[in-house]
Amino acid sequence: MYTTKAAGRTLNVVVWGENRHEQIEPHVAALYPDGMHNTIKNGIDALLGDRVSVTTALLDDPEHGLSEEVLATTDVLTWWGHAAHDEVSDEVVLRVQRHVLSGMGLIVLHSGHWSKIFTTLMGTTCTLRWRSEHDRELVWTVNPSHPIAQGVPHPIEIPEQEMYGEQFDVPTPDELIFISSFSGGEVFRSGMTFTRGNGKIFYFSPGDQDFPVYHHPDIRRVIANSVEWAASATTRREIPVLLRYDTDDFFTGHGYDGPISAEAVGAALDAKSDAAAEAATTSGPTA
Amino acid sequence: MYTTKAAGRTLNVVVWGENRHEQIEPHVAALYPDGMHNTIKNGIDALLGDRVSVTTALLDDPEHGLSEEVLATTDVLTWWGHAAHDEVSDEVVLRVQRHVLSGMGLIVLHSGHWSKIFTTLMGTTCTLRWRSEHDRELVWTVNPSHPIAQGVPHPIEIPEQEMYGEQFDVPTPDELIFISSFSGGEVFRSGMTFTRGNGKIFYFSPGDQDFPVYHHPDIRRVIANSVEWAASATTRREIPVLLRYDTDDFFTGHGYDGPISAEAVGAALDAKSDAAAEAATTSGPTA
Amino acid sequence: MYTTKAAGRTLNVVVWGENRHEQIEPHVAALYPDGMHNTIKNGIDALLGDRVSVTTALLDDPEHGLSEEVLATTDVLTWWGHAAHDEVSDEVVLRVQRHVLSGMGLIVLHSGHWSKIFTTLMGTTCTLRWRSEHDRELVWTVNPSHPIAQGVPHPIEIPEQEMYGEQFDVPTPDELIFISSFSGGEVFRSGMTFTRGNGKIFYFSPGDQDFPVYHHPDIRRVIANSVEWAASATTRREIPVLLRYDTDDFFTGHGYDGPISAEAVGAALDAKSDAAAEAATTSGPTA
Amino acid sequence: MYTTKAAGRTLNVVVWGENRHEQIEPHVAALYPDGMHNTIKNGIDALLGDRVSVTTALLDDPEHGLSEEVLATTDVLTWWGHAAHDEVSDEVVLRVQRHVLSGMGLIVLHSGHWSKIFTTLMGTTCTLRWRSEHDRELVWTVNPSHPIAQGVPHPIEIPEQEMYGEQFDVPTPDELIFISSFSGGEVFRSGMTFTRGNGKIFYFSPGDQDFPVYHHPDIRRVIANSVEWAASATTRREIPVLLRYDTDDFFTGHGYDGPISAEAVGAALDAKSDAAAEAATTSGPTA
Repeated sequence: MYTTKAAGRTLNVVVWGENRHEQIEPHVAALYPDGMHNTIKNGIDALLGDRVSVTTALLDDPEHGLSEEVLATTDVLTWWGHAAHDEVSDEVVLRVQRHVLSGMGLIVLHSGHWSKIFTTLMGTTCTLRWRSEHDRELVWTVNPSHPIAQGVPHPIEIPEQEMYGEQFDVPTPDELIFISSFSGGEVFRSGMTFTRGNGKIFYFSPGDQDFPVYHHPDIRRVIANSVEWAASATTRREIPVLLRYDTDDFFTGHGYDGPISAEAVGAALDAKSDAAAEAATTSGPTA
Repeated sequence: MYTTKAAGRTLNVVVWGENRHEQIEPHVAALYPDGMHNTIKNGIDALLGDRVSVTTALLDDPEHGLSEEVLATTDVLTWWGHAAHDEVSDEVVLRVQRHVLSGMGLIVLHSGHWSKIFTTLMGTTCTLRWRSEHDRELVWTVNPSHPIAQGVPHPIEIPEQEMYGEQFDVPTPDELIFISSFSGGEVFRSGMTFTRGNGKIFYFSPGDQDFPVYHHPDIRRVIANSVEWAASATTRREIPVLLRYDTDDFFTGHGYDGPISAEAVGAALDAKSDAAAEAATTSGPTA
Repeated sequence: MYTTKAAGRTLNVVVWGENRHEQIEPHVAALYPDGMHNTIKNGIDALLGDRVSVTTALLDDPEHGLSEEVLATTDVLTWWGHAAHDEVSDEVVLRVQRHVLSGMGLIVLHSGHWSKIFTTLMGTTCTLRWRSEHDRELVWTVNPSHPIAQGVPHPIEIPEQEMYGEQFDVPTPDELIFISSFSGGEVFRSGMTFTRGNGKIFYFSPGDQDFPVYHHPDIRRVIANSVEWAASATTRREIPVLLRYDTDDFFTGHGYDGPISAEAVGAALDAKSDAAAEAATTSGPTA
Repeated sequence: MYTTKAAGRTLNVVVWGENRHEQIEPHVAALYPDGMHNTIKNGIDALLGDRVSVTTALLDDPEHGLSEEVLATTDVLTWWGHAAHDEVSDEVVLRVQRHVLSGMGLIVLHSGHWSKIFTTLMGTTCTLRWRSEHDRELVWTVNPSHPIAQGVPHPIEIPEQEMYGEQFDVPTPDELIFISSFSGGEVFRSGMTFTRGNGKIFYFSPGDQDFPVYHHPDIRRVIANSVEWAASATTRREIPVLLRYDTDDFFTGHGYDGPISAEAVGAALDAKSDAAAEAATTSGPTA
């Protein structure tokens, strides 16, 4: 049985940042002097106040800042990466996947579309077309009653942005919330939700290291809305498991003992062994 | 630009079988004396005739029978596995995934829900509840105009079956076609489609090694329908890739050169080197 | 621009009831001595407390209790009807539709599937198969992280119920939350959401005049959850309209002047008039 | 039980046209000298050849050319209307709706978004934003393996078009196939499928009386693809109905006798009559 979300519970949010562009490229550092992760964190803090407790975690932290202990108490994780997707350890990716499937919310931002965690959860290449040439981006709402779309104009105007265009190779989303156009003429499904296991995922494309998009008040509003949306409706965190249920008992699941009984395997091996002893030249199918 | 499917083209279908239960368990061999894979193959042959060319591939074949050459000419692959999911090599799984994303159809049958290829494409645990106790299964159509649902009664009756029950941990399907009930009272979304990349996937749960389900005429009809449905609408096979497009050129994509220019990385390293020489005690951020 | 929902705002809920069976059939009156509408109201009150202000409206009230004034301040309307769908005036149906499209939530219960308001909003026949023979109904959750599914067991057990079975002729829902099985073997998509205009709709099938389903604590929990879910995320109520926008002005819509300019129509009529005067026998196309 | 579509069956297609602009506005007549309906018909004929038999029907024909006899043998109906939506009789609209729910395919083109038949089937206002100022439209494919998207470039370029922009007030589509951008910056979900009853519906926005869009080879290809897609997979035409099924008989439905037995109603009326005779002042509930 699920338990309802405690009213007024403070949500623990972790803003994960790759934090490489800011260290290498002066023009990025100029836009984000405290790092993009802190700009994103500040936006969430400013809009959600004491409804959230926000911390940051970085690629260069031990375990990328995403230990089992940290994730176990995280309600929503936001993810921005770009230049160093390959440096994220597979072990941490599988750990994050397990927590998402168990109910942790995940907000994947912009170039995070090509992160290991997003492609692992989607099962597709998550590729797209792109161009970084100062296109104007307009973000249009196509799902006006969705909680993530509240409090922003229609459209949101971003004076300069990297272009991301279709085809975007992701599964059909649960919900399509935003579609962007770019001054060059391309379109992009820029805000989409996905449910995976017990976890809620929101992908939101506006945002780039080369442009001050994470300072944009409407973009901050969407991210804050999505944090509240992605927080699990329950306080229990658990991954789906395969369980056997006896007839007429709907509530007591039993663990898995394997696909074939040990007796059957043993008898089969014995039989094969006997047969082999009798006729070593037999060329039948093997188990 | 896509090219339309050549009318009358023969579809190449590969029926993949684990072929272990049939070798180990006499009661399975009695139900499927030629192996489950040949029973499935025969059903497709009988219903689709010269519209298809069907072959089989087995776990114990070299490369599990799924070499690059085989997959490159396969229109639709059907997958049944159960006892030996772990023995399928990761290399072959990634190869099959690549071909699905490029446009090969995939039909995942029954216990294939827990196969590496299905969990990789879904991104979830693909777990469920189950019981093998001779439940009657009724397969109800909820999408009556779908091509996969044509030519079968409503409901399909399966006298004895393994029970598969909700919650089934898969992403929201593109289309829900069948819902099953079991005499014990459980329900299951037993026929669902998913699009991944350019590939079409159909999961269909009826079918088990312990029961003669793959001899059932209605189940054979659904599988045959799904093979035709999953065949790509195009004759071109290609995986989605990330490409850069110049402004006003929508048709000439350029390959990816990396997230940060070599000059920027070099300059940053030089600057850091100089700074380090000046003051070895500086404790700023590192790249 | 949308404004966010005021935190802590009390939701105005109207429980609409047909209130005929209770008057005519003693066994229904015995189950629901205050009418089904009051039983439903009491469940919402008990679970949502001061977060809601719940009133009832009945078929036999003036304007069925659904005047423009009432609807204008209603956040969520629940609808139960059965024997007298035809007695609901078309004018009130169109009024309710307009308010749903403008953002009012709507919860359609059980036999409300065949109400005028539901078929009008769905565009389909909303027919199904049924049998009232004391089937046990099990309600299984297939969307475990959805807010409507919180706080109830998996499955919900209803000892006796009318059977509703597939095919249920409704559009593909936005979200499938519950699937029911019946002891006779039928299945039904028993909990589904639909978005129409700015309004959110939840259809929930458990509940019948012949059984005490609306006294069932889990059913009451689902209905209460759905009331909170269906309340609009915004405080503004407005119906979508067709508007013309000048180039580069995304925010100032202009009203519609008709499909063809008055000048063009006038000129065409003049021309036709002249032509008619010249040759009355001309048999060309007419405007 | 459903019967499969006869291979090679010729599809009967009816192209419905309002045929008013062509009569009134010389610039429209110049673009479409035979009427828009014939241009659309010719495109389907040219691409599908002897796989279809295409006729036209016009607003000014008796019964708008859509008699019961015509619709009964129509596999797919295309609909273009604009200036005279209100002149379409409600009787014909309900007749077309019935045939769609029974399995006839429907292709709604451009300004048909505001037709009675489309708003009736959708249940929403079907409004949008618009501007007729020679915008360039680009039509991007977001569902590349869909049969309707085959054989066209990505994107389709339309040099001049009326702008249609979001928010487009339609229900969430079953499938989103195309998204358009306009040179003014707006976006529009320009190709969407909907299932209603046993019928398949495709809405496609490119096309206008003021521009030669229906002469565009890619637009003609999409319309031809959609005609083949929308044709029913079955040869049987039937509307969903409400039927009662006895326990353990899944295949014999019984007609509906009304919600309350005649005996119960009679008894209740008798009882009320008696009570009224006894005490005329009683102010209890009324039936």
